[in-house]
Amino acid sequence: MIQDTRKAVASPFVSVGLGHVRITGGFWERVMDVNRCVTLPIQYQQCKKTGRINAFRLTWKEGDDNPPHVFWDSDLGKWIEAAAYSLSASRDRALEHLVDDVVDLIAWAQQPDGYLNTHFIAVEPEKRWTNLRDDHELYCAGHLMEGAVAYYQATGKRKFLDVMCRYADHVDKVFGRRTNQKRGYCGHEEIELALMKLYAVTHESRYLDLARFFIDERGRSPHYFDQEARARGEDPRKFWAKTYAYNQAHLPVREQTTVVGHAVRAMYLYCGMADVAQVTGDPALRKACKRLWKNLVERRMHVTGGLGPVAANEGFTCDYDLPNEGAYLETCAAIGLVLWAQRMLTAELDGEVTDVMERALYNGTISGVSLDGKRFFYGNPLAVHTGFDGNGRFVEKNYHYRRSEWFGCACCPPNIARMIAQFPGFMYSTRAHELAVHLYAQSTGHVTLAGQTVRISQETAYPWEERVVLTIAPEHARIWTLALRIPGWCRDAKLYVNGKAVARGSATQRGYARIRRTWHTGDRVDLVLPMTVERIEAHPAVRQDCGRVALQRGPVVYCIEEVDNGGNLNDIVLLSDPAFTITRNHSGLLANVPRIHAKACRREPGDWKGRLYRSQSSRHVPCDITAIPYFMWANRSPGEMLVWIRDWGRS
Amino acid sequence: MIQDTRKAVASPFVSVGLGHVRITGGFWERVMDVNRCVTLPIQYQQCKKTGRINAFRLTWKEGDDNPPHVFWDSDLGKWIEAAAYSLSASRDRALEHLVDDVVDLIAWAQQPDGYLNTHFIAVEPEKRWTNLRDDHELYCAGHLMEGAVAYYQATGKRKFLDVMCRYADHVDKVFGRRTNQKRGYCGHEEIELALMKLYAVTHESRYLDLARFFIDERGRSPHYFDQEARARGEDPRKFWAKTYAYNQAHLPVREQTTVVGHAVRAMYLYCGMADVAQVTGDPALRKACKRLWKNLVERRMHVTGGLGPVAANEGFTCDYDLPNEGAYLETCAAIGLVLWAQRMLTAELDGEVTDVMERALYNGTISGVSLDGKRFFYGNPLAVHTGFDGNGRFVEKNYHYRRSEWFGCACCPPNIARMIAQFPGFMYSTRAHELAVHLYAQSTGHVTLAGQTVRISQETAYPWEERVVLTIAPEHARIWTLALRIPGWCRDAKLYVNGKAVARGSATQRGYARIRRTWHTGDRVDLVLPMTVERIEAHPAVRQDCGRVALQRGPVVYCIEEVDNGGNLNDIVLLSDPAFTITRNHSGLLANVPRIHAKACRREPGDWKGRLYRSQSSRHVPCDITAIPYFMWANRSPGEMLVWIRDWGRS
Repeated sequence: MIQDTRKAVASPFVSVGLGHVRITGGFWERVMDVNRCVTLPIQYQQCKKTGRINAFRLTWKEGDDNPPHVFWDSDLGKWIEAAAYSLSASRDRALEHLVDDVVDLIAWAQQPDGYLNTHFIAVEPEKRWTNLRDDHELYCAGHLMEGAVAYYQATGKRKFLDVMCRYADHVDKVFGRRTNQKRGYCGHEEIELALMKLYAVTHESRYLDLARFFIDERGRSPHYFDQEARARGEDPRKFWAKTYAYNQAHLPVREQTTVVGHAVRAMYLYCGMADVAQVTGDPALRKACKRLWKNLVERRMHVTGGLGPVAANEGFTCDYDLPNEGAYLETCAAIGLVLWAQRMLTAELDGEVTDVMERALYNGTISGVSLDGKRFFYGNPLAVHTGFDGNGRFVEKNYHYRRSEWFGCACCPPNIARMIAQFPGFMYSTRAHELAVHLYAQSTGHVTLAGQTVRISQETAYPWEERVVLTIAPEHARIWTLALRIPGWCRDAKLYVNGKAVARGSATQRGYARIRRTWHTGDRVDLVLPMTVERIEAHPAVRQDCGRVALQRGPVVYCIEEVDNGGNLNDIVLLSDPAFTITRNHSGLLANVPRIHAKACRREPGDWKGRLYRSQSSRHVPCDITAIPYFMWANRSPGEMLVWIRDWGRS
Repeated sequence: MIQDTRKAVASPFVSVGLGHVRITGGFWERVMDVNRCVTLPIQYQQCKKTGRINAFRLTWKEGDDNPPHVFWDSDLGKWIEAAAYSLSASRDRALEHLVDDVVDLIAWAQQPDGYLNTHFIAVEPEKRWTNLRDDHELYCAGHLMEGAVAYYQATGKRKFLDVMCRYADHVDKVFGRRTNQKRGYCGHEEIELALMKLYAVTHESRYLDLARFFIDERGRSPHYFDQEARARGEDPRKFWAKTYAYNQAHLPVREQTTVVGHAVRAMYLYCGMADVAQVTGDPALRKACKRLWKNLVERRMHVTGGLGPVAANEGFTCDYDLPNEGAYLETCAAIGLVLWAQRMLTAELDGEVTDVMERALYNGTISGVSLDGKRFFYGNPLAVHTGFDGNGRFVEKNYHYRRSEWFGCACCPPNIARMIAQFPGFMYSTRAHELAVHLYAQSTGHVTLAGQTVRISQETAYPWEERVVLTIAPEHARIWTLALRIPGWCRDAKLYVNGKAVARGSATQRGYARIRRTWHTGDRVDLVLPMTVERIEAHPAVRQDCGRVALQRGPVVYCIEEVDNGGNLNDIVLLSDPAFTITRNHSGLLANVPRIHAKACRREPGDWKGRLYRSQSSRHVPCDITAIPYFMWANRSPGEMLVWIRDWGRS
């Protein structure tokens, strides 16, 4: 076991951009291929079919059907961002041509003053910037900005970037603390982090200042949402969500201590806060981020990295309230968690943060898309029963909760597409003489380090297999540190440099094994991460998981489905010694995927003679159960699904 | 053990009216005293304060606050009914005077044509009888009729009865199959059973015919609710509940096979169906009742007799869906079940029906009122967690779900009052030469039997103690049958007549021990019903109760509360041998109430070091738990509550 001294590593890291890392096989190659070849094209078609692209023609008139909705621009922005990341990995003329056409249209729609929003230009021009709380104007702007930055980085083409800088300049004129400016901020955070991206590529300090302004203004008194509502002639107390905690605007952000409200909004805010803290070094903002992180991962996160247990606010309730059936857990929220974790890691290396990022990456995010890349989940509950929808609402007797082709509010599909497409960008970060490896995947990277380019390759079938072989090829032999993440789920990691075991006492700090040496071309690092099947228990205050365990192998959380195990899954009890075994199919939907088999028991069916209740008299009969990765559920015959399995405790 | 041959007992029984039975001590005396002395007066005050009584002055004008609501008349009707039952048990001049004043007001409000509804007279006169589906007009009429019949039976005063007969005559003119009549029926059933009560006291066959008409028309095509909606200029498909199953109007009643929709509506319909079947002998209607009963008690009833798991439709979902936390289980629905069961028992003696009636009586109905009689539950969930309301919705961190003083829609408070007040009427029924004893309670009854009056007394501390001593005093020594219910929860009932054990082979049919003999004054029957603590399991398809047991002693279902057992109740596991013991306090809120103590264990608190999840490593430490009757929960310090306790199975 490599020791972990929990000593902080200071001084900031920089993520290695996804343009510098190429996935060359394995798990993520399949996922990214499906994303590029299937998901991106059908999402383009959906955007087209539903009017999200044509909206930029600004032809909608009073009385027409299908007015551009206040969310629409954001969906297209995320699709462009996803397409751009895909182009970063592999240029594709047809795709690039599609994006160029869309960009032309967007540029055409931009107003002379820089304003750009299809709903408020075409449908409600008089209401521009009058309802920041509800109308998603700055949120849409943010997603278009992220798309523009990504497309510029992927292709070097400035057109979309310039359009969005003009829009940002316009926003910068409208919002601020000067006379005749609005001291407002968006009800759905997003523009904060987007402006930081715009700042990163343009170095325009006004964008940084504007992001900081939005973050600093949030939740202050007198409350902007109150003033704005009164200006509209509305009673602020009639806000449907009843509390500005829904928008994380109940308190100034530096005073916030618990993650509250709408989960996606929360994650995007924390991303923006982390970005600003990183650039400005603001200690109060950093501290707030760390406090909120701690509250989230210690009390409010599902085992899949899913966030936001209830549909009512698409968000958080209270500590340790982590329902399974009916849990909301929006795909976008888990994606937001990955994005926040990545930002937290640029401030300091902390394996627990990476563990959370990985938990979300392999579970609650990619569950949001079907294996064929064609259908999407909005909500990702951890138990599903026939007859009920993803929110635990009874629909009808034979209803099965399955992924959908699209949604009226279609935030999740392009969000999962952009997350998958940028996966290589999550893998590494660097600082002067250190390279941190956060994630393991078959790949080749070229990173700038110690004044040179270092090639780093990974050979691995992670997350299905335990071995990762890293090959290092620097231009010159120099001393620097390789910081390898030792996953928190792994009980007995082994590390070898050029075949020689790295001694137990070697410096593992906060989940990263730090190997400082002179690296030569051809140096080989072997990391072995034994993947025993773990029975995970939740804190006793999580009432929904008492007496239950979740099975986890490596970073992957498993579930049981009716197709493998029959119905009444809640009646299954794992034995004290479940004698776990692993099998793999050689072909088919689950090809090469380790399935977990375990010894369990369930009540003998017996004859209840029409009774619903009786004095306890059932005997249990043995059974074998089969679990598959949670993210793969609902890809075969429909039926019940369950993550937290009843358990009789360790023998 | 007394054998049960499951042979049907034919020919109908007649309930012994509550005027003939007097509770003389014990459990129900306390409950009925609180009901009479506390609940009835405060409910009168609430009706007055909220405008439900003044509404009959018809003074409301456009622009005034607090318009009479479409439900209001029904609340007052139920309060009068409750007051009347209380007067049947003990005349009380002050109470009678109050009712007389209210009756005068109601009579004053009646329109020349007989119509009587405060909302539609004062607020929307032009909308009379235009929306039977939603507007509760006939429902309100029904509750006023029930009140009128009860008050007439209690006092012999005809005024209110005459008023309601005139209203019934008006309804009879408006509704029917003749030209210019409406072929409609109420969206909320109630008038059907009320008309049968009116028929029972007036012998006016038009009331029977009208009840039958409403039942026969229900759910026929073309659908009245469709026609009516179109006549209002509405699209029938825009009905909020989406399906007429909500109103049990999706099919003609004789074709219905599953209990669906709004639970209270369903129970009231089935009561009306049972009443009509009883009087007309209609075999198809009887068969439908039995089929629906079977579906309900075998698949859709909570262990407390609570009905209707979800708030969305205040009603049913699908077979075996019996959630605990967040379950709706409206007090009125469990009351409706008692009323239906009572009617089913008039057709034939079936101990399983009585078991269900008793289950609801001692659990899911009386949980609806606080022990001090001042506060009421609308919903009666089987698990409650701090922070969440009765529907499982997060309210705020420190919120506790407690009984309320009143509700905007106040159906439950007067309903529980009228149920408690009529308890003596549930105890006995007779036919020519047979007296059936359904329920045990300290009491004295005078029943007409075998051409004479028979006095029957019960000495018992039921449901807390196992012994019931019945003393029989007929006017003349004659042969007749005493049918004593042997509760289904009892494993080893013992029966003695004048000290002599009734032989094992004696005729117990479908849960009733039938003793046919010549009864003399002073004959004594001893019934001993050993009350072991039973661990009840639910059918394996009830996913919410898998791996859990409910504790039941006698007819009383128990629960554990945080005040006795600390928090995280779901982390408690009953041992295989829980070594149940019983204790009683001599005074205080729970005086004389058996509390159940059991051996259990829970995870040792340990130090989770801020972790939310970990590889399973907890040990369990022993603990003792204390359970109290479910219906008594939420009368002490607030906190968690749980009925279905985790369990490690029988040793």
